[in-house]
Amino acid sequence: MTQTAKAVTIVEPRKLELREYTIPPLQPSGLLMQIEMSGICGTDKHTYRGETTQYGGTVNEQISPFPLIPGHENVGIVADITPGVVDFYGQPLRIGDRITMCPDVVCGKCYNCRHIFGYSWCEHWRGYGNSFRASEQPLMGGWSEYMVLIPEAFVYKVPDGLKPELAVYTEIMACTYALDKAKEFSSIAAEGFLSDDAVLIQGVGPLGLCHLIKARMMGAGTIIAMDRSEYRLKMAKAFGADHVVNVGNTSEALEGVFVDMGNIPLNPHLIVSKALRLIGLSNHPFTGYGPSMDLMLRYQDKMPLDTFVTHCFPLEEAQAAMDTALGLECMKVVFTPNRAAQQR
Amino acid sequence: MTQTAKAVTIVEPRKLELREYTIPPLQPSGLLMQIEMSGICGTDKHTYRGETTQYGGTVNEQISPFPLIPGHENVGIVADITPGVVDFYGQPLRIGDRITMCPDVVCGKCYNCRHIFGYSWCEHWRGYGNSFRASEQPLMGGWSEYMVLIPEAFVYKVPDGLKPELAVYTEIMACTYALDKAKEFSSIAAEGFLSDDAVLIQGVGPLGLCHLIKARMMGAGTIIAMDRSEYRLKMAKAFGADHVVNVGNTSEALEGVFVDMGNIPLNPHLIVSKALRLIGLSNHPFTGYGPSMDLMLRYQDKMPLDTFVTHCFPLEEAQAAMDTALGLECMKVVFTPNRAAQQR
Amino acid sequence: MTQTAKAVTIVEPRKLELREYTIPPLQPSGLLMQIEMSGICGTDKHTYRGETTQYGGTVNEQISPFPLIPGHENVGIVADITPGVVDFYGQPLRIGDRITMCPDVVCGKCYNCRHIFGYSWCEHWRGYGNSFRASEQPLMGGWSEYMVLIPEAFVYKVPDGLKPELAVYTEIMACTYALDKAKEFSSIAAEGFLSDDAVLIQGVGPLGLCHLIKARMMGAGTIIAMDRSEYRLKMAKAFGADHVVNVGNTSEALEGVFVDMGNIPLNPHLIVSKALRLIGLSNHPFTGYGPSMDLMLRYQDKMPLDTFVTHCFPLEEAQAAMDTALGLECMKVVFTPNRAAQQR
Amino acid sequence: MTQTAKAVTIVEPRKLELREYTIPPLQPSGLLMQIEMSGICGTDKHTYRGETTQYGGTVNEQISPFPLIPGHENVGIVADITPGVVDFYGQPLRIGDRITMCPDVVCGKCYNCRHIFGYSWCEHWRGYGNSFRASEQPLMGGWSEYMVLIPEAFVYKVPDGLKPELAVYTEIMACTYALDKAKEFSSIAAEGFLSDDAVLIQGVGPLGLCHLIKARMMGAGTIIAMDRSEYRLKMAKAFGADHVVNVGNTSEALEGVFVDMGNIPLNPHLIVSKALRLIGLSNHPFTGYGPSMDLMLRYQDKMPLDTFVTHCFPLEEAQAAMDTALGLECMKVVFTPNRAAQQR
Repeated sequence: MTQTAKAVTIVEPRKLELREYTIPPLQPSGLLMQIEMSGICGTDKHTYRGETTQYGGTVNEQISPFPLIPGHENVGIVADITPGVVDFYGQPLRIGDRITMCPDVVCGKCYNCRHIFGYSWCEHWRGYGNSFRASEQPLMGGWSEYMVLIPEAFVYKVPDGLKPELAVYTEIMACTYALDKAKEFSSIAAEGFLSDDAVLIQGVGPLGLCHLIKARMMGAGTIIAMDRSEYRLKMAKAFGADHVVNVGNTSEALEGVFVDMGNIPLNPHLIVSKALRLIGLSNHPFTGYGPSMDLMLRYQDKMPLDTFVTHCFPLEEAQAAMDTALGLECMKVVFTPNRAAQQR
Repeated sequence: MTQTAKAVTIVEPRKLELREYTIPPLQPSGLLMQIEMSGICGTDKHTYRGETTQYGGTVNEQISPFPLIPGHENVGIVADITPGVVDFYGQPLRIGDRITMCPDVVCGKCYNCRHIFGYSWCEHWRGYGNSFRASEQPLMGGWSEYMVLIPEAFVYKVPDGLKPELAVYTEIMACTYALDKAKEFSSIAAEGFLSDDAVLIQGVGPLGLCHLIKARMMGAGTIIAMDRSEYRLKMAKAFGADHVVNVGNTSEALEGVFVDMGNIPLNPHLIVSKALRLIGLSNHPFTGYGPSMDLMLRYQDKMPLDTFVTHCFPLEEAQAAMDTALGLECMKVVFTPNRAAQQR
Repeated sequence: MTQTAKAVTIVEPRKLELREYTIPPLQPSGLLMQIEMSGICGTDKHTYRGETTQYGGTVNEQISPFPLIPGHENVGIVADITPGVVDFYGQPLRIGDRITMCPDVVCGKCYNCRHIFGYSWCEHWRGYGNSFRASEQPLMGGWSEYMVLIPEAFVYKVPDGLKPELAVYTEIMACTYALDKAKEFSSIAAEGFLSDDAVLIQGVGPLGLCHLIKARMMGAGTIIAMDRSEYRLKMAKAFGADHVVNVGNTSEALEGVFVDMGNIPLNPHLIVSKALRLIGLSNHPFTGYGPSMDLMLRYQDKMPLDTFVTHCFPLEEAQAAMDTALGLECMKVVFTPNRAAQQR
Repeated sequence: MTQTAKAVTIVEPRKLELREYTIPPLQPSGLLMQIEMSGICGTDKHTYRGETTQYGGTVNEQISPFPLIPGHENVGIVADITPGVVDFYGQPLRIGDRITMCPDVVCGKCYNCRHIFGYSWCEHWRGYGNSFRASEQPLMGGWSEYMVLIPEAFVYKVPDGLKPELAVYTEIMACTYALDKAKEFSSIAAEGFLSDDAVLIQGVGPLGLCHLIKARMMGAGTIIAMDRSEYRLKMAKAFGADHVVNVGNTSEALEGVFVDMGNIPLNPHLIVSKALRLIGLSNHPFTGYGPSMDLMLRYQDKMPLDTFVTHCFPLEEAQAAMDTALGLECMKVVFTPNRAAQQR
């Protein structure tokens, strides 16, 4: 096995370098993953621009450290493993198995871990591709040839037949459990997300598009997608949106909310008089990976799921990858660090 | 307009007659419906056999009276109407419109109507095709050329593009709201009906098959269908069951529960130790008609929804229709009282 | 019986007059109510100041007309009644019975009535004390000696043993079903309103205090009350608040939201990162009157429920009543139009 | 510190012995608890009679081994502790602190631990007082002077002011979360457990009585208690039951369901026609201990909570304690192994 691995590293805001790291020896219960694909997420774009505060206003608030190896939407192959290590569901893992992983590493013992089911609100939260300074703990992000999986990380075996270009966005699909939550709000017409209910999606980047996919899988009626990218609205159509609206020319378009963009004006009277429900959710359940992959497998012939990844780049073209991801003419942009080696 | 209408009448248990009735003059806010299709339901089969107790053990318990014109799964055309009459959703109705209707007529004022949302648990419940003695109040069932709709009945305009052979089973599709209810039981893996959850359907007659269809629309994972009819299991496969099990040869198959078949042995310890939930539901919400038709319209190109009705009979062949429905080599059997007239 | 009835009338903003009206003859299914007590609600104070837009931004939006007889929190005695008229629960009513009523009159047939359970979101909504121009339809508000109840209005018999000073705030207690709704959001620690959960109440006027009472009845843990009135915070303490906070000197206190006070700044990132839920609700269920009275009856010896009404005024002292209600040194202010006559 | 501890041991069915065990040295992250009180539970009575199958029909099914030191409802004092050990909520623990504990020890890693929130459905479940053979792993039950707490066990600091005779039934109070679950089933009158809803409790032994207490705390309306013990029905009255029914003379009384007593006859038609919900639950959430103790503290002056423990016995009188518990003239029977030493 190779003794070193190359990895795209954000050394400071707006500065990417391809650095080489020594692969550390396998830890007890450890696992080494050869990366097939690793996505560029909106979070990574913020980090690249130096907007590094995540989970602001909560006990999980943290600042991404530099130098950083990003990459938390990962699919790859087990390259080395401690015998007996199993995946999240207890399935045995072997060298050569295709896996994906949950980037959120939790302690399982803090108040939040013990009171909030499945979601990673751990007070000691650490995020792959987000929390680990590469100079101290290397190869803890997916924009790399190899990634180190610590025993606390949740690993999921990819089912046979699910290609990497689908498995790579399992984490994003797991983020759509907001829709499952919406289903649980009573089966009265005006309350929860009933079958045939209309769904409006504001912004059909990768996260929005996955919500569209999931809404369609779950029995939505009319789906309306809004964005300012014609490229993305066209994809929304292809994935089942009934109506698309380009809001690029409207004067009141709202910006993203995962990152703290400050206050917006809002009329609380309308929330009350219309009996609205605003349900905040910035995360996804650990339990959502298996079902998400199963559903992708089930729907891969009914929806163009393999068009979701629109651009692949080798690690050497990190800047071009980032520039593409920062634009509006893409859906999911990924690195394929070992594509040549794998002859794919 | 014709002054009389022929209707299949159960004059006593196991005795069908084609009788002719005078069409009464239009009542204020009334509506006359020319029947295109009217299904034979399991309930009708019970009534035919003289098993006439419905909603046993509740305030709604009633005995079906003879002579009776059955037929509560109806689709047809507005033949006459009081100007200004609207459908359940407030849409105006005109002569020539295709409509379906809810067989359950409720008072809207009793304790049950005021406390149980949408479902017809009315203490003064009257059911089209079930409650009206044909000798006293004729043409109140769908196995007829024309049916009289009283002002209290809920009527639903069929959307353009939805053929009668789909619209005719709207009521059955509305019965699948048990699945919406199951969705509302919390989004924890072990509690509600989450996306990708497995669904087991015991008996894939028309009601079971509609649950299969709806479960697939709502994001079910593995679906297992059980029945003792190979014919029906084959249809279950065609509609998306992953596994089918013929229980015809098992010794412990359970019989239907809508009709009171008496006690079965059950171990309450297992309900407790396994934290099971048994959710009884024998009815459907008034609000489920529109969404059901919308979903059928949306899925008619993705599922073989137009194969659901397997047998059509003119009123003159009532006995053959009933004999077919009593067998296992059919899915939905319907009457088409005006097919010749309509040149379809 | 008296042929006329005096009623406090808002003839224009900030102008109250005691006018005399002819009592109309009893309608079919009608009921005449002799008012014992009628509260002054926050809504009435807004109307008095000329802030007359209610349910803004919804199909129910309406402007209160002048001249207006306010009063929608009413308790009184059946003075005249059509034989056979029953209350909401089907209980027979007789002259001399103590009753309360729901001010919201709904059609029961519009889309909202048919899709939103129990809550009065009717598209043809009319509100006692709010919607009826006294010059056109007199005695449709409770600040009056007698009030006319139309057949569509929901009337509730007050159980034996519940005094008028408790029954008069049944409607406010029914508004606390937001807490029942909060209970329904899953029994996970971080989601719904579990037993022993902390409750923060912003503003302990009558509505806030009723929420405090109900929260305590429903198994709340720590209850914190905020207000800028020491008088009210002292009452909050007496009703079971563990902590009270006077926000009178803080710079960021928010104002009420039932009335449209325009935008406030709000950071959507915090809703997302903290997984918050904002549940708007401006109304109450028809089904909440009976249970609210039962609970008041049950808790009247355990909580100082009879101190809730702090000020009683005859109709002749309307201006003093309004001035008191506009201040901070009161909880519920009511009119007692017939107290002298009733020798209480 | 004493080097040995006496413990009541079931050496074989129906045979109790007071044996002496060597206290093992403190493990890393371990804790030694001096028992103040340890209850006799219905489970212990079954074990005593040789009915030793628990969680039958599930992956958790296990047979209680002999010799066994029972006792899973425990309160006591920290006698020795590894520095730095914290309780379930992260609060530091010190020698002399009063604690209670959850008898269920779970792995946190199996499928059930990862998918079923809070409840102990662990596939590797081990229960204090139930799973540990005293000859192999001694002092793992509370009918003892000292009990050994392993690091995986959840410990809860008892709040100041909560006496041992209340804290000892924290586990039983935590079992009442079935009522919190019932609250989550929608806020429609006919579905969930709304405020003022009636509650019927079949059997008011300790578990039933705790459900009565909790139902009253959570805003129940009419509460009806059934039992065949006048002693217990009298206590039910004292704790707030509105009606009590002695079923001792009825012919159809059902027996307990936690233990497998085999089949009963049940009519599934009634579940369907009445839209009933049967919600099985045999366990309690880890998260329920803190809230349960808080609520007991809050209600100890409003309810006779200190009368719940009706009989205390020293370890030397184990047979008398068991005989009392097997009768109907008691509520909670407990051992007080160190009472003399503590001078209480």
